[in-house]
Order: sequence, then C-alpha cells, then structure tokens
Amino acid sequence: MTLETVSTSRSHGGIQGVYRHASAETGTPMVFSVFLPPQATNGAKLPVVWYLSGLTCTHANVTDKGEFRQAAAELGLIVVCPDTSPRGEGVADDAAWDMGQGAGFYVDATQAPWAPHFRMWSYVTKELPEVVAANFPVDMDRQGITGHSMGGHGALTVALRHPGRFKSVSAFAPIVAPTQVPWGQKALPGYLGDDPAAWRHHDTVALIQDGARLPDLLVDQGTADSFLENQLRPELLRQACADAGIPLTLRLQDGYDHSYFFISTFMRDHLEWHAERLKA
Amino acid sequence: MTLETVSTSRSHGGIQGVYRHASAETGTPMVFSVFLPPQATNGAKLPVVWYLSGLTCTHANVTDKGEFRQAAAELGLIVVCPDTSPRGEGVADDAAWDMGQGAGFYVDATQAPWAPHFRMWSYVTKELPEVVAANFPVDMDRQGITGHSMGGHGALTVALRHPGRFKSVSAFAPIVAPTQVPWGQKALPGYLGDDPAAWRHHDTVALIQDGARLPDLLVDQGTADSFLENQLRPELLRQACADAGIPLTLRLQDGYDHSYFFISTFMRDHLEWHAERLKA
Repeated sequence: MTLETVSTSRSHGGIQGVYRHASAETGTPMVFSVFLPPQATNGAKLPVVWYLSGLTCTHANVTDKGEFRQAAAELGLIVVCPDTSPRGEGVADDAAWDMGQGAGFYVDATQAPWAPHFRMWSYVTKELPEVVAANFPVDMDRQGITGHSMGGHGALTVALRHPGRFKSVSAFAPIVAPTQVPWGQKALPGYLGDDPAAWRHHDTVALIQDGARLPDLLVDQGTADSFLENQLRPELLRQACADAGIPLTLRLQDGYDHSYFFISTFMRDHLEWHAERLKA
Repeated sequence: MTLETVSTSRSHGGIQGVYRHASAETGTPMVFSVFLPPQATNGAKLPVVWYLSGLTCTHANVTDKGEFRQAAAELGLIVVCPDTSPRGEGVADDAAWDMGQGAGFYVDATQAPWAPHFRMWSYVTKELPEVVAANFPVDMDRQGITGHSMGGHGALTVALRHPGRFKSVSAFAPIVAPTQVPWGQKALPGYLGDDPAAWRHHDTVALIQDGARLPDLLVDQGTADSFLENQLRPELLRQACADAGIPLTLRLQDGYDHSYFFISTFMRDHLEWHAERLKA
C-alpha cells in the first residue's frame, strides 16, 4: 500500500493533501484527498469524516469548493474525500455522464463491461479505510460519513450496512431511493444485473424498510434543486425514517440548488453535527 | 449595457451570480461574477469589494475556491470578480501562460498584436464599474479592492492611480515590482512597448516612489510560495512603503503557498479589513 503524495498545501492552519495509490480493488490508480487539521501535528489520533462525492465529480470538486477546512480545523476533524469511480484507459465508460467513469454509484459491479474495475463499494468500505488508517493519524473508532447526491446515496447505504462503524451520518441532497428514480433505475441494473434483491442492498429507503438502522441523520436539501422531484425525493426518506423510528433532521433549504454553492453554505453545520457525535 | 445572466445560485444566504456583457473596451464578451449578500434584498446600497485574479485565472477560480461568501454575507459586502483578459477567437494569444489570454496584467496594450482587445486597465477602472453601478445595489462611495498575484498588482496599481476611490486596499501575494521581475519584464514591454516611463505607471513600487499614496495596506504572503523570491519580492514593497510613510501590514504566512488553499485561509481577514474601512 505505497502512497504517492500528489500535492500538499497548508490551508486554514492544517494540511490539504492529495494522494495516489494502486488500488487492488479497482485495478487502477486511485486518487483521494485528506485534510489534516492543525491538531494532527501533536501525535494524537483524530476523528475522521468521510465525504463521498456525486456524479461527474472527482476528489477535487469538494476539495476545491466544499469550504470545509475552516470548520474542520476548528473542530479537529480529518476529512477524507475519495474519487467516484475508477478511471483511465482500459476502464469501461459510457457516453452518458450518469454511468461509468465519474458515476460508480458505490457498488461492486457484477455485470460486463463494468465488473473488472467498478468495485467502489469494496474500495470505500475496505481498501481505502485500511490505506487511510495506515498512513494518517485517524481514530477509526470515531468515524463519520457524509456525501452529496450519488455520494449521499453512498454515505447512507455504507452507514446502514455497517452498523456501529459510523457514529455520525449526514448527507447533502442524497439519492435516497435509487430503485424508484431514473438515475438508479439505469445504474443499478447496469452494474448489478436484473435481480431486484441486489438493488435493494444499494437503496437507502429499501435498506431501512428491510430493517437497517442509523442512530440519527442530518439531511439538507435545496428547494430549487433541479433534481429534487425526479431523482432525489426526500419525502421517501422522511416516510421510511418515520416508519422505522430513525430520528431524521431533514432541512429543506429555501432557494438552494444542487451545486457546491449549496453544499458549502451548510458544510459547517454538517461538520458540527459530526463533531458533536464523534467527540461525545 | 445589456447584461446577460449566465447563472445565479443561492449561497450563504445571498446570491452568487455570473454575468456576461459585450465590452466596448475589449471588443469581446466579458464574464464576471457578483456576490450579493443577504443585506442586498432590502433596497439599501452596499459597499463593494473588487477582487482581481491572477495569471491563468478567470472569474471562476475565486468564485469557486475563494471561500469569501460566508464572511461577505456576515459583513454585508458585495464582491465583484472580473476576468483577467479578453478571450476568444480573433483575440491575440501566446503559447505561454504568462502572456495573452488569461494574463492581461491590467494594462491598456499599445503594441501589436495586443492593442485591439487587451484594454483591461480601462475595463476594470471605467467600463466594468459603470456596468456594476448600473445593475447592482453598490454604493460607489464605499469601494475596496484586492487581488491575487497579477491581480494583486492590478489592485495596487489601480488603487494608487485613483486616489480616494478606494477606502480599503489589500492583496494576496501580489506582484509589486513588475519592472524588476521576469513576469513583468516580459509582459510590460510586450503590451506597452519599450518606454520605461509607461512601465512605471503599472509598477506598484515605482508608483509609490513617484509619489502615489494609499491610506494603508494589508498584504498576505506565503513563505512557501514558489514565486516568492523571483517574482513577488515583498521586501521591495516593504521598503517603498517605509520610505513613503504608507502604513503597510505585511504578513508572512508560514508554510503557505501561492494557491487558493492560501487565499481562502486569509480571505476572511481581508474582508474584515475592508469592512472596517468601508463601514467606518
């Protein structure tokens, strides 16, 4: 697990790094970013928040535009931001922006042509946590997870299927019911084949209906988000959490869209939500 | 002066907009961004801070990565971010990234092939202020100006040559003496020809030596900036300000580089510097 440092820059008193490694899961080089707050210099292990990105994004979108460093520095949180898929020549792709490279949907694909490299589920739940734990001062007993859109889907499904691993969970405009919306109705059969049971393992609402639980959950959703009604449908999450007794804080943010102008506005609230639970 | 709205997004309680207009100065379409803080909705005119960007940048770099909106929203500041040059087919360019498109150096070029379109001095000092004043609730009696690198050069020279226009002036890692460093020794003769007198009108240290003054000045400079010794040379600014009696707050920021990871860290300090003077 040799880690190559792509870049490091001092920022908000800490270090924003970008790293590359050869992933055994995807069979490709994978790039991710890690922000170490100033507290990381004293040898102590710090709580870590994972941020999973949305369609078309790499690690760079949130690293450049997420405005998370000031709050993370104040709160003493390490923030890790993976890529959204394997990339490069020899990796399958699709002309559409919602399938293939940049659109891994955090699943282990079983179908051609995706199966050889598209193993983002195992990458973000097993391989990358081992790489991060081996190379950075993270306290793996204090992990939180969040994400945006497809990455919100990733964060919620990963948390639901790893009970106890994450002490704090949140999402920005997540895809909560991919089996019921066009993005997921394309991606899940494409990556996983025709068995609806396989899809339900990657559908937040279905996982909750099938018994998975979270301690509590913060979700922000912009009311001017152009994907709100057709792809995101937070009312399905609200109903599932109500039925299951999961305490959901769902905030409909008036006039906000799907962009990082929205995410960056509420990033501090999310990191404070995580810090409160990770430092309790 | 018809203004086309490229995009608007709610952010930090205000509106981040991007606009395009046909510039008479450059003879091209020009794009710029404006952040309106939440206070802009009540009909009052608000103080405005101009941010001039550096080499290779458009309006988008600082708009995406500058982390200025939270502080601007709190302080009630409008932030305007122009492009760094004319662009497009039919506009002269250079294979190098420090000349031509993306590298206008905030001068009115007199030399071929630049003279027809490279009129960034008149654009940022005359045309764009008129466009902004006509279309946004800016109080033109309360203007501040800042910028980064080549844009720091632009901010300082514009402020020095418009005494009284700007109540607050700051810069991030500015080029302060272009006649004494490689970037300027290429750009100034390239755009302005062989007369050293023309260069001195676009050299902060020379302008101060020749009698121009500022009320006071905040400059942040990273010590790990790879351009520090050869291109930026803040010691020349320190000496010029000391000789002229200009109160300069020059902060050497330990370990910071030339990137937006540096700028975003100290953006709040700069906006507070401006707000203190604009709202006095």
